Amino acid sequence: MARSVETPAAPPAAAPGDEVDPTLEPDVFARCCTSRHVLQDVTGRWGALALGALHQGPARFNALRRRVDGVSEKMLAQTLQALERDGFVLRDVQATIPPKVEYRLTPLGATIAAHLVGLIELLEGSMPEVADAQRAYDER
Amino acid sequence: MARSVETPAAPPAAAPGDEVDPTLEPDVFARCCTSRHVLQDVTGRWGALALGALHQGPARFNALRRRVDGVSEKMLAQTLQALERDGFVLRDVQATIPPKVEYRLTPLGATIAAHLVGLIELLEGSMPEVADAQRAYDER
Repeated sequence: MARSVETPAAPPAAAPGDEVDPTLEPDVFARCCTSRHVLQDVTGRWGALALGALHQGPARFNALRRRVDGVSEKMLAQTLQALERDGFVLRDVQATIPPKVEYRLTPLGATIAAHLVGLIELLEGSMPEVADAQRAYDER
Repeated sequence: MARSVETPAAPPAAAPGDEVDPTLEPDVFARCCTSRHVLQDVTGRWGALALGALHQGPARFNALRRRVDGVSEKMLAQTLQALERDGFVLRDVQATIPPKVEYRLTPLGATIAAHLVGLIELLEGSMPEVADAQRAYDER
Protein backbone atom coordinates (compact mmCIF):
# COMPACT_ATOMS: atom_id res chain seq x y z
CA MET A 1 0.00 0.00 0.00
CA ALA A 2 1.40 3.36 -1.03
CA ARG A 3 2.01 5.78 1.84
CA SER A 4 0.98 9.33 1.18
CA VAL A 5 4.01 11.59 0.91
CA GLU A 6 1.89 14.38 2.29
CA THR A 7 1.50 12.75 5.68
CA PRO A 8 4.35 14.12 7.75
CA ALA A 9 6.05 11.66 10.03
CA ALA A 10 5.19 12.27 13.65
CA PRO A 11 8.13 13.88 15.44
CA PRO A 12 9.91 11.36 17.66
CA ALA A 13 8.77 11.60 21.24
CA ALA A 14 11.44 12.99 23.54
CA ALA A 15 13.02 10.22 25.55
CA PRO A 16 12.77 10.72 29.32
CA GLY A 17 15.95 12.32 30.55
CA ASP A 18 16.62 14.16 27.30
CA GLU A 19 18.21 17.41 28.32
CA VAL A 20 16.73 19.44 25.50
CA ASP A 21 13.14 19.07 24.34
CA PRO A 22 13.27 19.96 20.63
CA THR A 23 9.60 20.91 20.59
CA LEU A 24 10.33 23.72 23.03
CA GLU A 25 13.55 25.05 21.61
CA PRO A 26 12.51 27.03 18.58
CA ASP A 27 10.25 29.44 20.41
CA VAL A 28 12.60 31.47 22.55
CA PHE A 29 14.89 31.98 19.59
CA ALA A 30 12.04 33.27 17.45
CA ARG A 31 11.94 37.03 17.23
CA CYS A 32 8.29 37.60 18.09
CA CYS A 33 7.52 34.73 20.42
CA THR A 34 5.94 35.72 23.73
CA SER A 35 8.38 33.43 25.51
CA ARG A 36 11.28 35.63 24.47
CA HIS A 37 9.61 38.60 26.17
CA VAL A 38 8.89 36.53 29.26
CA LEU A 39 12.54 35.42 29.34
CA GLN A 40 13.50 39.08 29.31
CA ASP A 41 11.05 39.88 32.13
CA VAL A 42 12.74 37.18 34.19
CA THR A 43 16.39 37.72 33.25
CA GLY A 44 16.40 41.42 32.43
CA ARG A 45 18.49 43.99 34.31
CA TRP A 46 15.99 44.41 37.18
CA GLY A 47 13.71 41.40 36.79
CA ALA A 48 16.40 38.90 37.80
CA LEU A 49 17.31 40.93 40.89
CA ALA A 50 13.67 41.50 41.91
CA LEU A 51 12.95 37.75 41.65
CA GLY A 52 16.19 37.00 43.50
CA ALA A 53 15.16 39.39 46.29
CA LEU A 54 11.63 37.93 46.53
CA HIS A 55 13.16 34.45 46.66
CA GLN A 56 14.23 35.41 50.20
CA GLY A 57 10.60 36.07 51.18
CA PRO A 58 7.70 38.51 50.71
CA ALA A 59 8.67 42.15 50.84
CA ARG A 60 7.20 45.63 50.66
CA PHE A 61 8.09 47.94 47.81
CA ASN A 62 10.60 50.06 49.72
CA ALA A 63 12.37 47.03 51.16
CA LEU A 64 12.74 45.64 47.64
CA ARG A 65 14.04 48.96 46.43
CA ARG A 66 16.73 48.98 49.11
CA ARG A 67 17.67 45.39 48.29
CA VAL A 68 17.92 45.93 44.53
CA ASP A 69 20.61 48.55 44.87
CA GLY A 70 20.46 51.24 42.18
CA VAL A 71 16.94 50.63 40.82
CA SER A 72 14.71 53.69 40.41
CA GLU A 73 11.18 53.76 41.83
CA LYS A 74 9.76 53.85 38.32
CA MET A 75 11.84 50.94 37.02
CA LEU A 76 11.08 48.75 40.04
CA ALA A 77 7.35 49.46 39.69
CA GLN A 78 7.46 48.56 35.97
CA THR A 79 9.50 45.43 36.69
CA LEU A 80 7.10 44.20 39.38
CA GLN A 81 4.11 44.96 37.17
CA ALA A 82 5.56 42.87 34.31
CA LEU A 83 6.33 39.99 36.70
CA GLU A 84 2.82 40.24 38.16
CA ARG A 85 1.27 40.16 34.68
CA ASP A 86 3.31 37.05 33.81
CA GLY A 87 1.99 35.34 36.94
CA PHE A 88 5.32 35.17 38.80
CA VAL A 89 4.59 37.78 41.48
CA LEU A 90 1.51 38.54 43.59
CA ARG A 91 0.76 42.07 44.75
CA ASP A 92 -0.97 41.56 48.05
CA VAL A 93 -2.93 44.57 49.30
CA GLN A 94 -3.94 44.20 52.94
CA ALA A 95 -7.00 46.15 54.07
CA THR A 96 -5.27 48.00 56.88
CA ILE A 97 -5.13 51.77 57.38
CA PRO A 98 -2.96 52.76 55.61
CA PRO A 99 -3.17 49.78 53.23
CA LYS A 100 -0.10 47.55 53.42
CA VAL A 101 1.13 46.31 50.05
CA GLU A 102 3.39 43.29 49.96
CA TYR A 103 4.94 41.50 47.01
CA ARG A 104 5.52 37.77 47.00
CA LEU A 105 6.23 34.97 44.55
CA THR A 106 3.48 32.73 43.17
CA PRO A 107 4.26 28.99 43.17
CA LEU A 108 5.35 29.30 39.50
CA GLY A 109 7.40 32.39 40.33
CA ALA A 110 9.06 30.54 43.21
CA THR A 111 10.13 27.73 40.84
CA ILE A 112 11.54 30.20 38.33
CA ALA A 113 13.23 32.27 41.05
CA ALA A 114 14.86 29.18 42.60
CA HIS A 115 16.36 28.28 39.24
CA LEU A 116 17.48 31.86 38.66
CA VAL A 117 19.08 32.07 42.10
CA GLY A 118 20.94 28.86 41.25
CA LEU A 119 22.32 30.56 38.14
CA ILE A 120 23.24 33.68 40.13
CA GLU A 121 25.08 31.57 42.72
CA LEU A 122 26.87 29.65 40.00
CA LEU A 123 28.05 32.94 38.50
CA GLU A 124 29.01 34.33 41.89
CA GLY A 125 31.05 31.24 42.59
CA SER A 126 32.74 31.57 39.19
CA MET A 127 33.80 35.18 39.66
CA PRO A 128 37.47 34.41 40.38
CA GLU A 129 37.65 32.45 37.11
CA VAL A 130 35.77 35.20 35.27
CA ALA A 131 38.08 37.89 36.70
CA ASP A 132 41.13 35.91 35.50
CA ALA A 133 39.61 35.59 32.03
CA GLN A 134 38.82 39.31 31.89
CA ARG A 135 42.36 40.21 32.96
CA ALA A 136 43.87 37.91 30.33
CA TYR A 137 41.57 39.33 27.65
CA ASP A 138 42.39 42.93 28.54
CA GLU A 139 46.14 42.25 28.50
CA ARG A 140 46.12 40.89 24.98
CA MET B 1 43.38 31.84 79.21
CA ALA B 2 41.86 35.03 77.82
CA ARG B 3 40.78 34.86 74.22
CA SER B 4 41.68 37.86 72.13
CA VAL B 5 38.61 39.88 71.24
CA GLU B 6 40.37 40.90 68.07
CA THR B 7 40.29 37.40 66.64
CA PRO B 8 37.13 37.36 64.51
CA ALA B 9 35.02 34.26 64.77
CA ALA B 10 35.17 32.11 61.67
CA PRO B 11 31.96 32.50 59.67
CA PRO B 12 29.72 29.48 60.15
CA ALA B 13 30.17 26.94 57.39
CA ALA B 14 27.11 26.63 55.17
CA ALA B 15 25.21 23.49 56.01
CA PRO B 16 24.97 21.04 53.10
CA GLY B 17 21.66 21.54 51.34
CA ASP B 18 21.38 25.23 52.19
CA GLU B 19 19.68 26.74 49.20
CA VAL B 20 21.24 30.16 49.50
CA ASP B 21 24.83 30.77 50.47
CA PRO B 22 24.70 34.10 52.30
CA THR B 23 28.36 34.83 51.59
CA LEU B 24 27.54 35.03 47.87
CA GLU B 25 24.32 36.95 48.00
CA PRO B 26 25.30 40.53 48.61
CA ASP B 27 27.44 40.92 45.53
CA VAL B 28 25.01 40.60 42.66
CA PHE B 29 22.61 42.98 44.38
CA ALA B 30 25.32 45.58 44.85
CA ARG B 31 25.18 48.31 42.25
CA CYS B 32 28.81 48.29 41.15
CA CYS B 33 29.79 44.68 41.64
CA THR B 34 31.39 43.05 38.59
CA SER B 35 29.15 40.06 39.12
CA ARG B 36 26.09 42.14 38.29
CA HIS B 37 27.61 43.04 34.93
CA VAL B 38 28.54 39.42 34.30
CA LEU B 39 24.97 38.39 35.15
CA GLN B 40 23.79 40.84 32.52
CA ASP B 41 26.26 39.50 29.95
CA VAL B 42 24.78 36.04 30.56
CA THR B 43 21.09 36.86 30.91
CA GLY B 44 20.83 39.99 28.76
CA ARG B 45 18.66 40.24 25.67
CA TRP B 46 21.20 38.60 23.33
CA GLY B 47 23.64 36.97 25.74
CA ALA B 48 21.13 34.38 26.92
CA LEU B 49 20.19 33.45 23.35
CA ALA B 50 23.81 33.31 22.15
CA LEU B 51 24.74 30.99 25.04
CA GLY B 52 21.61 28.92 24.39
CA ALA B 53 22.56 28.58 20.72
CA LEU B 54 26.18 27.62 21.53
CA HIS B 55 24.86 25.06 24.03
CA GLN B 56 23.83 23.09 20.92
CA GLY B 57 27.42 23.04 19.66
CA PRO B 58 30.16 25.22 18.14
CA ALA B 59 28.98 27.57 15.42
CA ARG B 60 30.23 30.18 12.99
CA PHE B 61 29.13 33.77 13.27
CA ASN B 62 26.57 33.68 10.49
CA ALA B 63 25.02 30.45 11.73
CA LEU B 64 24.65 32.02 15.18
CA ARG B 65 23.12 35.10 13.63
CA ARG B 66 20.51 33.02 11.85
CA ARG B 67 19.75 31.09 15.04
CA VAL B 68 19.37 34.17 17.23
CA ASP B 69 16.55 35.55 15.15
CA GLY B 70 16.47 39.35 15.04
CA VAL B 71 19.98 40.15 16.33
CA SER B 72 22.00 42.67 14.34
CA GLU B 73 25.56 41.91 13.23
CA LYS B 74 26.87 44.60 15.54
CA MET B 75 24.93 43.43 18.59
CA LEU B 76 25.90 39.79 18.08
CA ALA B 77 29.58 40.76 17.71
CA GLN B 78 29.42 42.84 20.92
CA THR B 79 27.59 40.05 22.75
CA LEU B 80 30.13 37.40 21.73
CA GLN B 81 33.01 39.71 22.63
CA ALA B 82 31.61 40.28 26.14
CA LEU B 83 31.09 36.52 26.62
CA GLU B 84 34.61 35.84 25.34
CA ARG B 85 36.08 38.41 27.75
CA ASP B 86 34.19 36.79 30.67
CA GLY B 87 35.71 33.44 29.73
CA PHE B 88 32.44 31.76 28.67
CA VAL B 89 33.09 31.62 24.92
CA LEU B 90 36.16 30.80 22.85
CA ARG B 91 36.73 32.41 19.46
CA ASP B 92 38.56 29.77 17.53
CA VAL B 93 40.38 31.03 14.43
CA GLN B 94 41.49 28.19 12.17
CA ALA B 95 44.47 28.86 9.90
CA THR B 96 42.69 28.02 6.67
CA ILE B 97 42.34 30.24 3.61
CA PRO B 98 40.06 32.06 4.14
CA PRO B 99 40.37 31.75 7.94
CA LYS B 100 37.46 29.92 9.49
CA VAL B 101 36.23 31.43 12.74
CA GLU B 102 34.16 29.31 15.05
CA TYR B 103 32.66 30.13 18.43
CA ARG B 104 32.30 27.55 21.16
CA LEU B 105 31.70 27.38 24.90
CA THR B 106 34.53 27.03 27.40
CA PRO B 107 33.96 24.42 30.15
CA LEU B 108 32.79 27.24 32.46
CA GLY B 109 30.57 28.63 29.70
CA ALA B 110 29.09 25.17 29.13
CA THR B 111 28.14 24.90 32.82
CA ILE B 112 26.52 28.34 32.78
CA ALA B 113 24.77 27.66 29.45
CA ALA B 114 23.38 24.33 30.68
CA HIS B 115 21.84 26.06 33.68
CA LEU B 116 20.51 28.87 31.49
CA VAL B 117 18.98 26.40 29.02
CA GLY B 118 17.30 24.73 32.00
CA LEU B 119 15.74 28.07 32.91
CA ILE B 120 14.68 28.69 29.31
CA GLU B 121 13.04 25.25 29.12
CA LEU B 122 11.31 25.82 32.43
CA LEU B 123 9.89 29.09 31.08
CA GLU B 124 8.94 27.52 27.76
CA GLY B 125 7.09 24.77 29.59
CA SER B 126 5.31 27.35 31.73
CA MET B 127 4.04 29.43 28.82
CA PRO B 128 0.43 28.16 28.97
CA GLU B 129 0.29 29.17 32.65
CA VAL B 130 1.95 32.52 31.85
CA ALA B 131 -0.48 33.16 28.99
CA ASP B 132 -3.42 32.50 31.33
CA ALA B 133 -1.97 34.90 33.90
CA GLN B 134 -1.42 37.60 31.26
CA ARG B 135 -4.98 37.23 29.98
CA ALA B 136 -6.43 37.47 33.50
CA TYR B 137 -4.26 40.53 34.22
CA ASP B 138 -5.28 42.29 31.01
CA GLU B 139 -8.98 41.63 31.66
CA ARG B 140 -8.94 43.26 35.08
